[in-house]
Amino acid sequence: MDLDEFKGDLERNARAVDQWLDRFLPVHDDPEAQVIEAMRYSALGGGKRVRPFLVKSCADLFGVSEIAALRAAAAVEMIHCYSLIHDDLPAMDDDDLRRGRATCHIEYDEATAILAGDALLTKAFEVLAEEETHSDPRVRADLVVALAKASGFEGMVGGQMLDLVAHEHALTMPEITRLQRMKTGALIAVSCEIGGLLGKASESQHLALNAYAHDLGLAFQIIDDLLDVEGSAAELGKATQKDEAAGKATFVSLLGVERARSQARMLVDQAVEHLAIFAEKAAPLKKLALFVFERRA
Amino acid sequence: MDLDEFKGDLERNARAVDQWLDRFLPVHDDPEAQVIEAMRYSALGGGKRVRPFLVKSCADLFGVSEIAALRAAAAVEMIHCYSLIHDDLPAMDDDDLRRGRATCHIEYDEATAILAGDALLTKAFEVLAEEETHSDPRVRADLVVALAKASGFEGMVGGQMLDLVAHEHALTMPEITRLQRMKTGALIAVSCEIGGLLGKASESQHLALNAYAHDLGLAFQIIDDLLDVEGSAAELGKATQKDEAAGKATFVSLLGVERARSQARMLVDQAVEHLAIFAEKAAPLKKLALFVFERRA
Repeated sequence: MDLDEFKGDLERNARAVDQWLDRFLPVHDDPEAQVIEAMRYSALGGGKRVRPFLVKSCADLFGVSEIAALRAAAAVEMIHCYSLIHDDLPAMDDDDLRRGRATCHIEYDEATAILAGDALLTKAFEVLAEEETHSDPRVRADLVVALAKASGFEGMVGGQMLDLVAHEHALTMPEITRLQRMKTGALIAVSCEIGGLLGKASESQHLALNAYAHDLGLAFQIIDDLLDVEGSAAELGKATQKDEAAGKATFVSLLGVERARSQARMLVDQAVEHLAIFAEKAAPLKKLALFVFERRA
Repeated sequence: MDLDEFKGDLERNARAVDQWLDRFLPVHDDPEAQVIEAMRYSALGGGKRVRPFLVKSCADLFGVSEIAALRAAAAVEMIHCYSLIHDDLPAMDDDDLRRGRATCHIEYDEATAILAGDALLTKAFEVLAEEETHSDPRVRADLVVALAKASGFEGMVGGQMLDLVAHEHALTMPEITRLQRMKTGALIAVSCEIGGLLGKASESQHLALNAYAHDLGLAFQIIDDLLDVEGSAAELGKATQKDEAAGKATFVSLLGVERARSQARMLVDQAVEHLAIFAEKAAPLKKLALFVFERRA
């Protein structure tokens, strides 16, 4: 695969999503505007936009309108960005660097960062439920339920809690796999599910997308752990070797570098196989899986 | 009005809402359960449940089913509780006492409190969008949009940001009124709106409820400021005289005690007048307005 060509595809989708984020977060000069500036700082501050790409590419399988797909993609990205802002807070992971820039609470202050995260989380549901996102209100309500389940205590928030209490003992493979599935896997899976919901996918199509997302999410995390060990902060735009320094179990500490890499490769191949029922239409999703494996940042 | 009898009505509604909150936040023994315990600690920890009473009483005007009204009421209360948890954090108002007990970050820790707030916020939208809340998916989607607008940067979060930056200069009456409308008024107003949406209220009914909520919310805040000056922490279950200590302008500091009280009385009378189109059915909403004026805590 031509990695550079695919990076161009990712980049084009990211810019299209940014246009919607820009629209959803309008600048004004009322005295409370600082919270909107902080939301924009974090939401429009770069990133590969893997989740929005998943929403859009899955929606494209079913011929969903570009407006619907990009609005939903922007909503998912707002959830991702809120989680990064809150996870970076001093009381949580206490990170100063994110996407190559100061984290939100460093650039503004902690109170503003907490509020910016809250407001991004809130806006995501507003966008999904608005009439412009889909003509069928049942689809809109289903989008809200799906995204909430993936983001809340049964999903991403539960995973972050698990990560925080995990410091107390070394995790086993099943435990770390469950943590990953909640903390990062749930949002990746719901990105695909949202594409399917927008396109009124059949049961078997939903299952295929879910299986793809499941394997992709796990591969994504294993590669993240590998990059944390092998990469530099300059390449990644965030602090590295934090897990090792904190004595935290990761896929790499449990499997070793070589087995972790071959496990990720196996998962990516498996993810691609699940897409067979979509034939040629699934090319972007296949490319994404290979990109996830080959990425260096 | 018999205040004690009305307190019994409030209390009965609070217990009914608690049953739904209890169901939405199931206890389990997975390692991440701490976040659910913290959600329960804050959401089930007492409070007058004024907002859920508004949702239920407005829904009752239109004969909405009890299940629909109580589910939506619980969702609004989850938003209120999340906002209290986050506002109490050290980086925000730094409060140790809430509803007569330790605040969430004191009872647990800051990270858990941040996550518990996030998860309550998320769960509120999940509950509103679920089929059990209303048979018409358009109503469910409209509930989500209304609650998100009231809670996000155009409403409650914007108001909290405004409050944080307000320390920089003394607020004028128009500024403090705008702050109140966003920080506390928006959620009170949407509580009434949600009752109307569930019952498919007409345009004029929506306008009447909105006018009632607007005046009630302002009266509520003025009385809150009066209690902050006159009440004790023991009566209120939270720290008092904080605004004065912080040199913050309040309705009382701007108007004086007597004028503030007569202003609140005028607003309560006006709120009750807006309910005329609902005739006798609006009795609970009228009682609530009088309770807001006469409450001592």
